[in-house]
Amino acid sequence: MEEIKRIKRELKHSGSILDIYEDTMLLPDGREAKWDFVSHRTGAACVLAIKPNGKIIMVRQFRSALDRITLEVPAGKRDSVNEDTKICAARELEEETGYRAGKLERLLSLKSTVAFCDELIDVYLATDLQKVGDQNLDDDEELDIEEYDLEELMDMCYAGTLQDSKTVAAIMAYAARKNR
Amino acid sequence: MEEIKRIKRELKHSGSILDIYEDTMLLPDGREAKWDFVSHRTGAACVLAIKPNGKIIMVRQFRSALDRITLEVPAGKRDSVNEDTKICAARELEEETGYRAGKLERLLSLKSTVAFCDELIDVYLATDLQKVGDQNLDDDEELDIEEYDLEELMDMCYAGTLQDSKTVAAIMAYAARKNR
Repeated sequence: MEEIKRIKRELKHSGSILDIYEDTMLLPDGREAKWDFVSHRTGAACVLAIKPNGKIIMVRQFRSALDRITLEVPAGKRDSVNEDTKICAARELEEETGYRAGKLERLLSLKSTVAFCDELIDVYLATDLQKVGDQNLDDDEELDIEEYDLEELMDMCYAGTLQDSKTVAAIMAYAARKNR
Repeated sequence: MEEIKRIKRELKHSGSILDIYEDTMLLPDGREAKWDFVSHRTGAACVLAIKPNGKIIMVRQFRSALDRITLEVPAGKRDSVNEDTKICAARELEEETGYRAGKLERLLSLKSTVAFCDELIDVYLATDLQKVGDQNLDDDEELDIEEYDLEELMDMCYAGTLQDSKTVAAIMAYAARKNR
């Protein structure tokens, strides 16, 4: 593999949760190219939460980027880059669903879209769930809670109707591990 | 679920492959919030390519966004929003690896990171592979080809060393389907 090198990184826009840069790359043939770089300031965590009866807790919410309602595993940003994603996962699960996990183990570590973004999403598996309260959402969150069987969710992934990549990866990694 | 509505979308930066917007959202309590929106102009496709001996063809390349080399399934952007992702998948597989797929079926449709981006990545499963040539890369691509067993790749996902979300989703969806 010949080397592609970054020779410059320039900030173009600072958004609410993102910083947008233009990278200048030096290609092996000596020419330069401009690449986009999107820095996600905090990273995030998400939770595949399995109830004792096997049902999986999902959230439904409006995603402005897609102009539609999505079905996803509970998830949220870290409070800071120093926050342990496990702490973040536990908090987001409890805030979004009212459930606390007796057991929380890391299942996957994801980079959501490596071609242009550094966003990290750690995926946790939550079991021994206990209902400890109601939803306690951030001001800019509105979401409904639903419960599904694993098989139903897998069908939705294969049918292409459940598309959120962290959610698909979490469901499939859990299913694949069960039968290993 | 109460309604969060977008009342304004403003272009902040046009990059090489992305357009960056600031969305103004009206929250249920009447206040406004600013959300980031990253539009990926073309969308993309990727390919889980399985050789007759069961080996999976992977590519290794430098990702400036992560400042490191990644291991991924072959992938690439569509030439335009009108291109069928299946055509895109076949082309990228052949360009990046020199293999042509006798059979190419859609395995998943992913949205890489729904909180702020509309990028679509359709995931295809390629079998009946035939070597038809050598790599034929774009000017700004440099990548090495490697081959792995499914079990090795699954171990790397669970260990957190293979992190690319489209690749993790593809591997796990294939593994889960095999044992269904």
